[in-house]
Amino acid sequence: MTRKREIHLGLFLQGAGHHVSGWRHPQAEAGSENFDLLRRVSQIAEAAKFDIVFLADGLTSGADAHPSTIARFEPLTLLASLAMVTEKIGLAATASTTYGEPYHTARAFASIDHLSHGRAAWNIVTTSYARTANNFSKSHPEHDERYAVAEEFVDVVRGLWDSWDDDAIIKDKQSGIYADPEKMHILDHKGKYFSVKGPLNIPRSPQGHPILIQAGSSGPGQDLAARTADIVFTAQQSLEEAQAFYKSLKDRVTGFGRHPDDVAVMPGFLPVIGRTAKEAEEKLAELDQWTDLKAAMPLLEERIGHSLKDYDPDGPLPDLPISDQLRSRAELLTALARRENLTIRQLALRVAAGRGHHIVLGTPVEIADRMQQWFETRAADGFNVMPPFFPQGLEDFTTLVVPILQERGLFRRDYTGSTLRDHLGLTRPALPPVFEP
Amino acid sequence: MTRKREIHLGLFLQGAGHHVSGWRHPQAEAGSENFDLLRRVSQIAEAAKFDIVFLADGLTSGADAHPSTIARFEPLTLLASLAMVTEKIGLAATASTTYGEPYHTARAFASIDHLSHGRAAWNIVTTSYARTANNFSKSHPEHDERYAVAEEFVDVVRGLWDSWDDDAIIKDKQSGIYADPEKMHILDHKGKYFSVKGPLNIPRSPQGHPILIQAGSSGPGQDLAARTADIVFTAQQSLEEAQAFYKSLKDRVTGFGRHPDDVAVMPGFLPVIGRTAKEAEEKLAELDQWTDLKAAMPLLEERIGHSLKDYDPDGPLPDLPISDQLRSRAELLTALARRENLTIRQLALRVAAGRGHHIVLGTPVEIADRMQQWFETRAADGFNVMPPFFPQGLEDFTTLVVPILQERGLFRRDYTGSTLRDHLGLTRPALPPVFEP
Repeated sequence: MTRKREIHLGLFLQGAGHHVSGWRHPQAEAGSENFDLLRRVSQIAEAAKFDIVFLADGLTSGADAHPSTIARFEPLTLLASLAMVTEKIGLAATASTTYGEPYHTARAFASIDHLSHGRAAWNIVTTSYARTANNFSKSHPEHDERYAVAEEFVDVVRGLWDSWDDDAIIKDKQSGIYADPEKMHILDHKGKYFSVKGPLNIPRSPQGHPILIQAGSSGPGQDLAARTADIVFTAQQSLEEAQAFYKSLKDRVTGFGRHPDDVAVMPGFLPVIGRTAKEAEEKLAELDQWTDLKAAMPLLEERIGHSLKDYDPDGPLPDLPISDQLRSRAELLTALARRENLTIRQLALRVAAGRGHHIVLGTPVEIADRMQQWFETRAADGFNVMPPFFPQGLEDFTTLVVPILQERGLFRRDYTGSTLRDHLGLTRPALPPVFEP
Repeated sequence: MTRKREIHLGLFLQGAGHHVSGWRHPQAEAGSENFDLLRRVSQIAEAAKFDIVFLADGLTSGADAHPSTIARFEPLTLLASLAMVTEKIGLAATASTTYGEPYHTARAFASIDHLSHGRAAWNIVTTSYARTANNFSKSHPEHDERYAVAEEFVDVVRGLWDSWDDDAIIKDKQSGIYADPEKMHILDHKGKYFSVKGPLNIPRSPQGHPILIQAGSSGPGQDLAARTADIVFTAQQSLEEAQAFYKSLKDRVTGFGRHPDDVAVMPGFLPVIGRTAKEAEEKLAELDQWTDLKAAMPLLEERIGHSLKDYDPDGPLPDLPISDQLRSRAELLTALARRENLTIRQLALRVAAGRGHHIVLGTPVEIADRMQQWFETRAADGFNVMPPFFPQGLEDFTTLVVPILQERGLFRRDYTGSTLRDHLGLTRPALPPVFEP
């Protein structure tokens, strides 16, 4: 494949803003439960020709949780509504393989792919937080088992998506044949974790398979992504770390016999934009001043997996054992604290501000420069843009930074296709040549 | 309560048409996977001031299944899309308590209630067909256990819907309080089948609780409906049976300490409309001629729970043991065959034509008369209208029958409220006065 390489842009969509205190900004409209805001923001991203809007998810709540997670729409229903008020932009939602059923998941994403005429994407997560189990009448599996379940879950979903040939539902009034039985495929999956016979009760969808996204950074997470995903979302703090992750991931993609260009690596990217570098710094400081350490500490503690209340917030992060459940996130944060000599307080504010994602401060040109550098030095194929607050934070990016990327030939000026696969330059999967068991 | 009693109208929405051969009619547009058709049909029902559109569901498929069930949208995503293209009509979707999780179900319907500004309804089913289990890595529970699970499932869902007071999400920029912890309620449910802590991660929805619909006709089904439901959908073949069911259900409602008017009984109703009675008969005969006995027999067999291939199709239905799984439907069909002396072939065609629902042939006035009779003699509070094919079958009903009902003062000329609760004349549930465990 020799297609021209272009930056892919996602909008990480939630109503509270990505800076933990973003919702408190005087210009912020807030609310992950505010559909009108989410609709307008999605339409702004579409007008700017973004590839995709992306909905994270979680299956718990609490008054002390991150503002974006306390109250929000169920992502699949939200995506189906957004499909009606947008036309071209890809639509991604998160669904857990630990707290779901492959038949339900396959069906819902195929349904959204039909409703959106080929714009659906599934962000595969295994759900890190053990407290989720309290809402689902079960115990939380260990990290490696979660990924083993996920591998099988994804295979079942992909198999179910191929239940019917593209031309199986013929609805021939003369013969009375509604669906051609010759073009139906029984999956008959019997695995370690799932037994799913099929077929799925929805026709093969416009994209054949909705786009798969994976965001795990651990070894098993990278392997799952490398084997199955079309997009990898990731949290990378520095260029060097991002390049190392990019190389590790692409090597694994090649190892699974796939072309490295078939997977787009898109780190999270929190832009704080000013007319001068100083103005950008002041903007971030303005946001940080509203962050209460009491609110920030739980976000750090849940990522580290330890209470830090017995430690001096102005001292260094202590050496603490890291559980398998949280390994990849906790190691990234520990490395960040050591590299920049951050105190517990500073690390907590950093986590709170961007939840471990890359925060970039500067003028529009400086921000475009950073994106170009990451893109050209193979740290990223694109970015999941995380405005600090909505809608202004996104409007600043689309009106000030996107035109620079377009002038440099790094980002599209218009959509050239209509499906998310088109935007990503990916072909539609054929049915497997031999499918019947 | 002394509110004026009015007929409630639902549209039983699916793309293939309710007569098994409806999709083969020359005027039929077919396809439960055809969103444009479903959108137009829903808008026709809304223009006619129907209370609700209703999506059935199932979790299996197959080329030999009923045309409406082979391929269709996942109902929750479809409902969320329909919420964007309608404004007033209620939106009901089916979700199973046997193959679902209360947290997911509570969340999805609350989400749709927000997206639709108070028009969501959940049709609670326990899933009759044992083959469903093949798609969900488990075994199919027996009838009575399914209902025991459903009772607990519904209670958990209702509890989760009360996780937050209506004014809990305050988003106070000054104080930095996003959600008021005093207005959050932890359910902490620990029951026989489910352990669900909560809170739900979505604010209390516009209707407080989305409307609950139940369609089981067995004793346990009626009890679940009488205790929890706002609407009961049911299949009744004759006035006498419908009156008996209506009385049985309302007595149970009273037995649970509820007002009988708080539950609307809405039988399925398949209208075949002609300018004369003879024309209506010819219309049904035209549809029946396209029904292949080979296609009709499996529909009867799955309701009876026995293969009938060794019996003479032109002989009577044999006496066969009825499994607990299928008791209520199988008994209704056996009674129908005995009462009308139907052969196996005739019964299969009848089942295929209306799937056990009441088929009414006649002129618009005759159809309106039948509806008025059922309504006034307490066989029904409304009807779930099942056009034999779309969109013409619905347009005939809305243009020819609805105006007669309006002239007689039996049905609204316009919506007087904006939520489904408003259409049904139901008040919004307050939070339980003492909720904390």
